[in-house]
Amino acid sequence: MMLQKCWPPSDESATLRVMSRVINFSPGPATLPTSVLESIQGELLDFQGSGISILEHSHRGKHYVAVHEQTTALLKELLSVPDTHEILFMGAGASGQFAFVPMNFLQGGSADYLDTGTWSKKAFKSAGCYGEPRWAGTGKEGERYVRAPRDLDLSEGAKYVHYTSNATIAGVQFHAAPNASAPLVADMSSDILSRPVDVAAHSLIYAGAQKNLGPAGVTIVIIEKSLMEQGRTNIPDHFQYGLLAAKQSMLNTPPTFPIYCVGKVLQWVKDNGGAEGMAKRNQEKADLLYKTIDDNAEFFRSPVEKGSRSQMNVVFNLPTEDLEKAFIAAAAEEGMVNTKGHRSVGGIRISLYNAIDPAHVVKLTDFMKAFAQKNG
Amino acid sequence: MMLQKCWPPSDESATLRVMSRVINFSPGPATLPTSVLESIQGELLDFQGSGISILEHSHRGKHYVAVHEQTTALLKELLSVPDTHEILFMGAGASGQFAFVPMNFLQGGSADYLDTGTWSKKAFKSAGCYGEPRWAGTGKEGERYVRAPRDLDLSEGAKYVHYTSNATIAGVQFHAAPNASAPLVADMSSDILSRPVDVAAHSLIYAGAQKNLGPAGVTIVIIEKSLMEQGRTNIPDHFQYGLLAAKQSMLNTPPTFPIYCVGKVLQWVKDNGGAEGMAKRNQEKADLLYKTIDDNAEFFRSPVEKGSRSQMNVVFNLPTEDLEKAFIAAAAEEGMVNTKGHRSVGGIRISLYNAIDPAHVVKLTDFMKAFAQKNG
Repeated sequence: MMLQKCWPPSDESATLRVMSRVINFSPGPATLPTSVLESIQGELLDFQGSGISILEHSHRGKHYVAVHEQTTALLKELLSVPDTHEILFMGAGASGQFAFVPMNFLQGGSADYLDTGTWSKKAFKSAGCYGEPRWAGTGKEGERYVRAPRDLDLSEGAKYVHYTSNATIAGVQFHAAPNASAPLVADMSSDILSRPVDVAAHSLIYAGAQKNLGPAGVTIVIIEKSLMEQGRTNIPDHFQYGLLAAKQSMLNTPPTFPIYCVGKVLQWVKDNGGAEGMAKRNQEKADLLYKTIDDNAEFFRSPVEKGSRSQMNVVFNLPTEDLEKAFIAAAAEEGMVNTKGHRSVGGIRISLYNAIDPAHVVKLTDFMKAFAQKNG
Repeated sequence: MMLQKCWPPSDESATLRVMSRVINFSPGPATLPTSVLESIQGELLDFQGSGISILEHSHRGKHYVAVHEQTTALLKELLSVPDTHEILFMGAGASGQFAFVPMNFLQGGSADYLDTGTWSKKAFKSAGCYGEPRWAGTGKEGERYVRAPRDLDLSEGAKYVHYTSNATIAGVQFHAAPNASAPLVADMSSDILSRPVDVAAHSLIYAGAQKNLGPAGVTIVIIEKSLMEQGRTNIPDHFQYGLLAAKQSMLNTPPTFPIYCVGKVLQWVKDNGGAEGMAKRNQEKADLLYKTIDDNAEFFRSPVEKGSRSQMNVVFNLPTEDLEKAFIAAAAEEGMVNTKGHRSVGGIRISLYNAIDPAHVVKLTDFMKAFAQKNG
């Protein structure tokens, strides 16, 4: 019902509009399935015959409440969230969680953080306002982050262990959750639902929506009830996971439209094989791209250890910065945009989130081979 | 440019869709101008020929940055924000501000809060986590809030004075900012830009967007630089107004789509006479509705003192609860929905935010007169 098309998707002008869409390899906010955008567009003036746009619906009204519940149920189903865990929607981005997690659970104590670069460092810094985070492992070698941290130096008294499952800047990904006896907390902003997740192994997972789940403006939190109950109660109500859970994330007005969009994306994921389907699709896309890099190793160079290569953000370098600039410009000419690496590391970055079509990676790799041949 | 229509607004099917929209008197999330919704719909698949939806555009890319800057500039212009103040966009709702304000500025001290009911109480409660808020005036008389607090009991050492300029539940509004020597902080969520605002009289104004400015998911903050510079620095970066201002609210990914929608609504406000135009329009709507109540005083009863009556949320009672239920049902039959009062006070509540068309209030008051005549 949620993906019902109320707006003609197949007339000539609509087709022309779809045809004009570019291939967007942005690291986030990121591309969304065109069919999802069409569905949103079609019902934007009148949601399900209510005479009211979903942008206008009260969060207390039956239309939005159904969307909210449906979106929660889809997340629970697609991520196989056990009944031991609650699903929440919050504002303020994953950066908000950098603070809310220690505000609730650090309580002046210490927590172990795993270092995979920029985002883990920001989480660590926020935790320092509420207790004593310590580094318990790093993926850094020399100047760059090149792998998921191993040989962890976990401490016995840690309130929790925090890791970033995928580092968008370094292109480094954990391919299994780290082993820890303390509650495991993961920032999965950039790889949630790109593959099945062992939710039960985690006490708290959070993820900004704007990579795999929808537009910017909402953060998903999956939290184990037994941890939730230990949260501080002398902090503002709206930062207490337990109070949010008791009100189904509607202690105040939630970001209704971003949540609605997440519901649309989740339905698309379900229609395309769920987490397993995404995993297969993402594996194929990443394999093809990394093979193209490795097969042309004299021209393309991946700085990341093979066992830690990200399926979501593939980073690589060309022989010179000038060639990288030429590559980015030539790709854009071919309708493939946002291929530039993060300014802190340079090079090329291709983000392969769920909504990137496998055919677009074929087009990219064909382009890469031709570019290498011409310029190698 | 922002309101350019890329999608046929005047073909027959579009007209039919517009015709099917109901009159939505919701207290928020609230109705938006139909032309704004059409504009958003028209460019949803391809923003300004970029081949990318605004839902997908990177917050670092030129298309979104232009939207962000344009929206900021429109707010500055329409609210006559002086150069002494910064404009910020944040997530987490006005409820987030209930915490961020004392977190930054209370610093263990005390602050004076003015009591107009539910929302002021929530703000007060959050402040209690960071210092000692005290009540310095109330609008409560007997069981209900019926007026803006007067005869204030302000304290000399207060770090700031906090008030809620419009109380959505009680239907009580301040028609002038309270006099205070301490920095004045206002929650203007439900009446911002409904009239000109004396921004210079305030050190901090915050407002959730979902009443007069756009959809849920973004909060506007207007903060005096001299206050901002006194904010705590041993709190998470993303809660420090100063750091947010230094990065134009892009310390992390902002809620891009809600901000884009706010820009559309602001352009509509500008095209319709700006804050002065809204004030005139809102005055006329409220005058007509209150006149209808007062002219039929044996049937409709406003519990609010005349000098404190809200132009945004008009609350009133009918002789019996059964008649109120019948009124709500009959109004819905006529295509006028969400007229039910808040469950804590009952009765009828008609929200007259900017986007409510004056003609819709004429229709409502005609209906009210007929209903009173039939049932009185």
